[in-house]
Amino acid sequence: MPVLREIGLLATCAPRGAQSEIHPISHAALVWENDTIRWVGKEVDLPEQYSGWEGKTAGGNLVIPGLIDAHTHLAFGGWRAEEFELRILGKSYLEIAESGGGILSTVARTRAATFEELRSRADEHLQGMARLGITTVEAKSGYGLSLEHELRLLQVYRDLADPQRPRIIPTLLAAHVVPPEYRARRAAYIRLIIEQIIPGASGIASFCDVFVEKSAFTIEEGREVLEAGVRHGLQPKLHADQLSDTGGAALAAEIGAVSADHLERVSDSGIEKLAAAGVVAVSLPLASLYLAAAPIPARRLIEAGVSVAVATDFNPGSAPSYHLPFALTLACTLQRMTPAEALKGATIIAARALGVEHDTGSLEAGKRADFAIVKAPSVEHWLYQLTENACQLTVASGREIWRVA
Amino acid sequence: MPVLREIGLLATCAPRGAQSEIHPISHAALVWENDTIRWVGKEVDLPEQYSGWEGKTAGGNLVIPGLIDAHTHLAFGGWRAEEFELRILGKSYLEIAESGGGILSTVARTRAATFEELRSRADEHLQGMARLGITTVEAKSGYGLSLEHELRLLQVYRDLADPQRPRIIPTLLAAHVVPPEYRARRAAYIRLIIEQIIPGASGIASFCDVFVEKSAFTIEEGREVLEAGVRHGLQPKLHADQLSDTGGAALAAEIGAVSADHLERVSDSGIEKLAAAGVVAVSLPLASLYLAAAPIPARRLIEAGVSVAVATDFNPGSAPSYHLPFALTLACTLQRMTPAEALKGATIIAARALGVEHDTGSLEAGKRADFAIVKAPSVEHWLYQLTENACQLTVASGREIWRVA
Repeated sequence: MPVLREIGLLATCAPRGAQSEIHPISHAALVWENDTIRWVGKEVDLPEQYSGWEGKTAGGNLVIPGLIDAHTHLAFGGWRAEEFELRILGKSYLEIAESGGGILSTVARTRAATFEELRSRADEHLQGMARLGITTVEAKSGYGLSLEHELRLLQVYRDLADPQRPRIIPTLLAAHVVPPEYRARRAAYIRLIIEQIIPGASGIASFCDVFVEKSAFTIEEGREVLEAGVRHGLQPKLHADQLSDTGGAALAAEIGAVSADHLERVSDSGIEKLAAAGVVAVSLPLASLYLAAAPIPARRLIEAGVSVAVATDFNPGSAPSYHLPFALTLACTLQRMTPAEALKGATIIAARALGVEHDTGSLEAGKRADFAIVKAPSVEHWLYQLTENACQLTVASGREIWRVA
Repeated sequence: MPVLREIGLLATCAPRGAQSEIHPISHAALVWENDTIRWVGKEVDLPEQYSGWEGKTAGGNLVIPGLIDAHTHLAFGGWRAEEFELRILGKSYLEIAESGGGILSTVARTRAATFEELRSRADEHLQGMARLGITTVEAKSGYGLSLEHELRLLQVYRDLADPQRPRIIPTLLAAHVVPPEYRARRAAYIRLIIEQIIPGASGIASFCDVFVEKSAFTIEEGREVLEAGVRHGLQPKLHADQLSDTGGAALAAEIGAVSADHLERVSDSGIEKLAAAGVVAVSLPLASLYLAAAPIPARRLIEAGVSVAVATDFNPGSAPSYHLPFALTLACTLQRMTPAEALKGATIIAARALGVEHDTGSLEAGKRADFAIVKAPSVEHWLYQLTENACQLTVASGREIWRVA
């Protein structure tokens, strides 16, 4: 039953107020018992009942809620470094996809990998995320594209559940792209998803996601799949309006999606609909950087009242990095989010995008003891001074899952 | 007298050929004796005479020349995290400078710091650079702006010379901005630089640099200062055409500068002149990112025959990061340089920008044993998969200056 003392600044990231309001406490202390936060406040106000508890020090550093990466494609076979240079030399994402690269080349390598290969690589990435202060990770399937291989990816995620690792929240993304064997009969693939894959994923995945894009699925196909997901207890999410404005944001609002992700090309009417429906926008600045795309209009979204999460989109093509703090710096520089908005976007708002706002994402009594100690005097300084890794200690559900050497 | 074996791929970065030609050797070995490379080639071709030497393994990883950061402002007092948010909210670099922030606020904090404070902070940054594979660092003065304080910064750099650290190459940048006490009499400050500071820096600094920009110095002032530098043995360098096209590139060509740095706004005629005069262009993608500025036209420069170095511009305002590998990834994504071009830009071309091409920047017999082992199968993969730090070992002049735990 420890007490963390000598916290220079603690960003509670409580949900109330604007996205820019992180409700900081200077000279703070944090008390937790087993997996749950008991008390947060100024150290001078520490209640007498906790004064005899085991003391730990934050060394005057910043303490933040455990970071939440609300959009990753965690398990996959192979990499796609060769496409990096092709894109630099001017090939578009769609051109690369159409010439046999892109998602489908990862599908081939994912299907060819063994369960153990997929598991051990995903585990390595998960441990890297723990080093960066991440305690919760959304992880999508989507490189299997068959009943067997989609469920295998979800089983990798289930198998990685372990109190010494960040928590995984699995999402079914069978509708990532039409697999080659169904290219001439896409309606049959939609039926496979609806009649077999979704029922199979029920009880394992929390969410059902669809990539609505010219190269992937139409609005109508997306609606059909997401409605089938809802019938099996999978909450809807969308990859929307990334490469073109296909009306994905409007579909997200119509269907009551928990989040609409990407949104680089979202229209003004799409923004209004997201705001009215309370859909979280998940921004993915690494993908904007790697695809040399115009970034999501984060300021317009925030000004319209939309909550904007920030996630990595970690995947072997358009965002081959799980460095969420670096994505937060990019959210500031490319998307013009303030450091406070970016942090709230990777804590409480990311928790909202994953339906776990009730138990994590902010440092408040009753929530999980998910937090990180960051070597910086303030949130602004942390995201401004880009270092390899400023995280000193990561605690998930009250357990140390990583500590700097 | 060690032999490094089991090198998966070794990028020699020999100067011959195009910037995209890194002259890679697969299944390589590298032999050095004391501080000097004796032999580089395929491991199967290792000459008999070295076969009994002390063997080390690169574990199948990538080996690159020690990285060279050709543009940093290494020693300074304070930080400027508060300006990061101001810029995000729309304040320009010049507006911040004019309201008392910017370079002058760092000048005040640098003057107020003790020699030991400046030295220990710069040393901390230098050790961080060593972790990233960096073996040579250019370091500018420019936050002192008086005879005493400019020379003190150069003395910090001289004092940090140590075989266990990256080598420092000092540059005098007394002409960084006009100090407040000379605001009403800038000609007097130019005289101070020419008559006192340059003679004082002679023998300590290798280069003389001028920030030619509306908010700093004119072309005429720049020419006068750089010519005075040449008379005292300091080779010319320029901060040119960063925020506006002031003709800095043309001045660099005219005066025979070793490098012209920044160049985000360089004109086509400026590019032609750089190419004709053989001036190295030093690109600074972190500054472009942090200032949300259009990047340097790297492709146009390379196509015109200009060698393009890549450096961090590490400073507390517009580029608060010494993460050179990350700057290389940004050179690829923002500046459309290929990974090979970026690597050569931070090795042999950076060496050229610092006048040390004869002794470092490539892995060839006779050069310093400056190299790094990087955990990646190829240069493309290293710069594509953005991790905290892929460097495993850094060797400078034959000595290990850092090794991963």
